Amino acid sequence: MTQPKTGKHLLVIGTVAIDSVETPFGKADNVLGGSATYFSIASSFFTSVRLVAVVGEDFPQRHVDLFKKHGVNIDGLVRMKGETFSWKGSYGYDLNVANTLETKLNTLEQFDPELSEEDKRSPFVFLANIDPDLQIKVINQLKNPAFVALDSMNLWIRIKKDSLLKAMSMVNMVVLNEAEAREITGQSNLVKAAKEIKKLGASIVVIKQGEYGSMGVFGNEIFSAPAFPMEDVYDPTGAGDSFAGGMIGYLARQGEINPDTLRQAMIVGSAVASYNVEAFSLERLTQLKFNDIVNRYNEIKRITIFDDFTH
Amino acid sequence: MTQPKTGKHLLVIGTVAIDSVETPFGKADNVLGGSATYFSIASSFFTSVRLVAVVGEDFPQRHVDLFKKHGVNIDGLVRMKGETFSWKGSYGYDLNVANTLETKLNTLEQFDPELSEEDKRSPFVFLANIDPDLQIKVINQLKNPAFVALDSMNLWIRIKKDSLLKAMSMVNMVVLNEAEAREITGQSNLVKAAKEIKKLGASIVVIKQGEYGSMGVFGNEIFSAPAFPMEDVYDPTGAGDSFAGGMIGYLARQGEINPDTLRQAMIVGSAVASYNVEAFSLERLTQLKFNDIVNRYNEIKRITIFDDFTH
Repeated sequence: MTQPKTGKHLLVIGTVAIDSVETPFGKADNVLGGSATYFSIASSFFTSVRLVAVVGEDFPQRHVDLFKKHGVNIDGLVRMKGETFSWKGSYGYDLNVANTLETKLNTLEQFDPELSEEDKRSPFVFLANIDPDLQIKVINQLKNPAFVALDSMNLWIRIKKDSLLKAMSMVNMVVLNEAEAREITGQSNLVKAAKEIKKLGASIVVIKQGEYGSMGVFGNEIFSAPAFPMEDVYDPTGAGDSFAGGMIGYLARQGEINPDTLRQAMIVGSAVASYNVEAFSLERLTQLKFNDIVNRYNEIKRITIFDDFTH
Repeated sequence: MTQPKTGKHLLVIGTVAIDSVETPFGKADNVLGGSATYFSIASSFFTSVRLVAVVGEDFPQRHVDLFKKHGVNIDGLVRMKGETFSWKGSYGYDLNVANTLETKLNTLEQFDPELSEEDKRSPFVFLANIDPDLQIKVINQLKNPAFVALDSMNLWIRIKKDSLLKAMSMVNMVVLNEAEAREITGQSNLVKAAKEIKKLGASIVVIKQGEYGSMGVFGNEIFSAPAFPMEDVYDPTGAGDSFAGGMIGYLARQGEINPDTLRQAMIVGSAVASYNVEAFSLERLTQLKFNDIVNRYNEIKRITIFDDFTH
């Protein structure tokens, strides 16, 4: 536990995975991963989080304990017959690009999320990267949510584009990385791509730009959030989900979505993501203190402020 | 003429070229280009600028008039027998990458800059992209300059690395794009690359990151300057030199180099460069008003500010 849970409840549905990752700086085999994992731990610093996901019989108790230690409610973590979804990937020196070596869906293939009554009444919801048909299924079970956000990946753009477009039309915020934003719109210019995604229905679009930060488009505003300039990046896995977890966790904590809280939230996301990439898997996130995040937020402020034009 | 020239004199040496450029949005044949051209026009909004460069007999009078119209002193523009240096290039949808189709050095090959007495006493000097041996030759002629900055390109890293490293050790500021910074240091991490370049001697390193903005490293500080998010980029040619021109022109105008003026200057550079890419060649820069730059500076401020962390 890190901080008093003052914010609104936040529900996340996505993947919990066993990852094997290799980067130029080392490797980690059979470690905890998955979109909902990174998101839930990252957001747990800010508000009370409920996790809905599936794992197999092989899922180690120590990972279950980790969620509990961070105060993540795992009543919705279904354990099914079979093995946990697993992902093997590697990164070269361009840490912005992950090479997937192997994906085993395993129990994820049978996952059919049924929300509990409490889950259904969650005011804040994040649909982490998972089959867009499941995302839609979850949205349809929600009872008057205040704020729903969605992430996705290139796979779903390629094999389930219609479902993804539909899911994107049902949420308040779409979070994508820049390659995905370009691919789904066929638009190379990122501002135009974000605006086209916005036309689908979400009033807020956040484009993740890896080591360059992120761009938010809300209403007629654009916000440009830098990444924290890192000297030592060991493993970028989960950076996007940590970013989203910090961002939406902060929004749930504030309980209010407006241009000012959105800007702050994107910086919080940058701060949390910058810690995540300092070590493999969730090693760094799980050691983090609330004040570390605030300190890095302030550092990001220092590296971006500048005076008015001097005539 | 745009604004009263209140700043310190700024000398630029580099190329003046005839460019032919094709982008997905159109093409322009035999238009004015060159590193010193973009730099001098961009910096002319801020201070008095002296240009040292070479052109051939074919160089049109209308281009000469353009420099004069912008108050650029061209006493150092040497006209030699032969043709003007020319560059043909194209850009695909990734406007960050220029494909050089043809380079004809022509008169540039015989260029041997001899500074006038007035040039030698310039307090501010920019060595735009040109053979590093010529950059060194110019540095050696300077008499007690207050501030010297240098830009370069991948070609010189490959064929004249020793000269370039020597030139970089003799200046106050090095300006490179991120690919060049990585190539010259063999370091993929950009913060580390910038710090290695700084070790060569310059106290200020500015890394240009194209559509993502730029990163400045000075003393122990890092400053992250966003680019202005553009919906319509027609021709990125000269963006880097316009950026440098705005940045160093502003520094010369302020007459003082410190972390605050450097931060402002990088934003001014972003503002000027963002206009430059709105049209081919110098079409947009030459229509620009001083207040347009101030307005865009303020817009960049609006897209980057955020409140303190709310507990």
